[in-house]
Amino acid sequence: MPREAEVDIIDAGRAISIALPNGVKQRFHAIWLRDNAWDETTRAAGNGQRLITLSNIPVDTRVSAVKSEAGSLHLTFQPENRTIAFDLNWLADHGYDNDRSRVSGWTSPDIETWDASLGAAIPLADFGAISRDQAALGNWLHGVRRYGFGKLVGGPVENAALFEVASLFGYIRETNYGRHFEVRTEVNPSNLAYTGLGLQAHTDNPYRDPVPTLQILYCLENSAEGGENMVVDGFRAAERLRAENPHGFDLLTRYCARFEYAGSAGICLRSRRPMIELAPDGELVGIRFNNRSTAAIIDVPYEDMADYYAAYRRLGEIIDDTSMEVTFKLAPGESFIVDNTRVLHARKGYSGAGSRWLQGCYADKDGLLSTLSAIELQNRKAA
Amino acid sequence: MPREAEVDIIDAGRAISIALPNGVKQRFHAIWLRDNAWDETTRAAGNGQRLITLSNIPVDTRVSAVKSEAGSLHLTFQPENRTIAFDLNWLADHGYDNDRSRVSGWTSPDIETWDASLGAAIPLADFGAISRDQAALGNWLHGVRRYGFGKLVGGPVENAALFEVASLFGYIRETNYGRHFEVRTEVNPSNLAYTGLGLQAHTDNPYRDPVPTLQILYCLENSAEGGENMVVDGFRAAERLRAENPHGFDLLTRYCARFEYAGSAGICLRSRRPMIELAPDGELVGIRFNNRSTAAIIDVPYEDMADYYAAYRRLGEIIDDTSMEVTFKLAPGESFIVDNTRVLHARKGYSGAGSRWLQGCYADKDGLLSTLSAIELQNRKAA
Repeated sequence: MPREAEVDIIDAGRAISIALPNGVKQRFHAIWLRDNAWDETTRAAGNGQRLITLSNIPVDTRVSAVKSEAGSLHLTFQPENRTIAFDLNWLADHGYDNDRSRVSGWTSPDIETWDASLGAAIPLADFGAISRDQAALGNWLHGVRRYGFGKLVGGPVENAALFEVASLFGYIRETNYGRHFEVRTEVNPSNLAYTGLGLQAHTDNPYRDPVPTLQILYCLENSAEGGENMVVDGFRAAERLRAENPHGFDLLTRYCARFEYAGSAGICLRSRRPMIELAPDGELVGIRFNNRSTAAIIDVPYEDMADYYAAYRRLGEIIDDTSMEVTFKLAPGESFIVDNTRVLHARKGYSGAGSRWLQGCYADKDGLLSTLSAIELQNRKAA
Repeated sequence: MPREAEVDIIDAGRAISIALPNGVKQRFHAIWLRDNAWDETTRAAGNGQRLITLSNIPVDTRVSAVKSEAGSLHLTFQPENRTIAFDLNWLADHGYDNDRSRVSGWTSPDIETWDASLGAAIPLADFGAISRDQAALGNWLHGVRRYGFGKLVGGPVENAALFEVASLFGYIRETNYGRHFEVRTEVNPSNLAYTGLGLQAHTDNPYRDPVPTLQILYCLENSAEGGENMVVDGFRAAERLRAENPHGFDLLTRYCARFEYAGSAGICLRSRRPMIELAPDGELVGIRFNNRSTAAIIDVPYEDMADYYAAYRRLGEIIDDTSMEVTFKLAPGESFIVDNTRVLHARKGYSGAGSRWLQGCYADKDGLLSTLSAIELQNRKAA
């Protein structure tokens, strides 16, 4: 961590250049520094929210003087003629003067893609342990963020127990399917999920915008023949497609697919989003894949449609490849969670004697990631 | 509507060309047609979900024979040797063989951008009327989809009445702020919203991913001096920026901003998304703008940061321009809804005698748009 820094005022005060102790130089603009000040007139004590808008900062803001002392930098801004202290560690963590040439479909360092070889490394925890113990909860959530799914064992075999899972980190996303839904065979199913049919690996509700970003499936009965669950890392599938066929990968990111569900009265859900979603700077941020609810794709020009379909087919083949899937059969009281923007889930068909009854619900990643970040922050403070 | 069509098999059966009665030619690929068949082995009766995956359709699918008859087209697919009927109106509605050169930041035909001159055209309805009457509800929701906001009058002056608004079309998005939150002055506010301060026009919770896509604010008391609400169309603001400074517009779409809120214990919400979000084909799909919760922006290279900040400043100036805003003061029992991915809301500061008490909640657009689409479908069937 930098304790002292060499600092130069450059570009007539419009920026500064800091030589960090490790030799790395980082330039910061005066306007950026002023906007990101943490003094008491810029940020509210307590909640940390910014008290000013950019229009309160003069357009010709520049740095006129710099004083470096142990761990901090005192910068004087003109024309305000105000001196504000900046933490050097904070600046070292928030540099933006870097090379950022990255491949299309790069992923965050917080995550790691996987295939069937993930095996025993799946994030697994005991429901009771993570309910009682913040550190255990943090470990499990860390795994869920990293791999996009996790399994829990040892939960109560009780109606609505899945809500207790969600309340460990966040909030239910209620939809037309209810706060939760029953996954078991129905006579007149409004959705093929409520039959004994096998289901190809898919993300849920791609016809919804925003999609529910988490799904929990909780087992109450599972004595039927079959009915195993499989999960597949959609990000790994996208990476495989990119390696084999960069043009096909590009087509699935560049054009929107369409999805639709109108399976019950009063419901007509439609979306227009790509199967492989990138942030504008190429980060891989979402997968939508669901054979049951893909609508007519009409946003791909005629000239590209044959190649688009070939890429869509190949992505499905990769997803169906057993070398991609982690398989398990839930016992009563066991559950799993998937990041529904990334990890696909599937089930084998089931029938015969016995019964299979799962309860499912949706939730969102914001709550989960916030809970995890708060635990991590707490751990760092305690360390 | 086409009753008959001239059809040619082209590209050795890999596509067909249809001359619609209006003279327009549309080509469709055999694989696309086969995938979008609606016969009983492709789609489930009742819920309409697709029963097959793309891997069930032969890779070398082609059309070997075509028979056109009033209103439909009978296509024979090889190597399956199956003949499937397609509705000509459906094909005319789902053509993809079109020119699609569009400007970056194009908007859907379902929406219309606006500024202060919107005036009396704001979507306004009586709470009782839309609660009783589906047609009135449909009209109001149509306006909300078109303009990204709407106002309701004549609702009950009762705690939690805002839930009755949400239940007309969808579901609450619960967050760390609760199923709803109280917008009134607090002694130790966890958020500046809970003070008497004026708030610059903003979208809510940009630090959450996904953001809540709808917000309802419902008035229970409003006798304080000030406290008027303003709404601004973020899409119009983006269009103005694009017209003035295309490069600045491009920078705000091309790089991610960062947002953060950590104002209460156990909460640490962060996101990395652009201020102006485009679909991969350039459709304008989202605005995130909030001075209070913008975090250090570190995903813009040093070389572009000064121009990025200039564009960010200018976008804020446009948003603050009174010629952009529609202003109103809510009376008890009145409420408004905003599309939080598009329309910014603001409030004037308030103080002095009297009181101001609003209740707020979040919901999502999927439910609202589904309810509207279902009403529209019903209307078309009845017509």
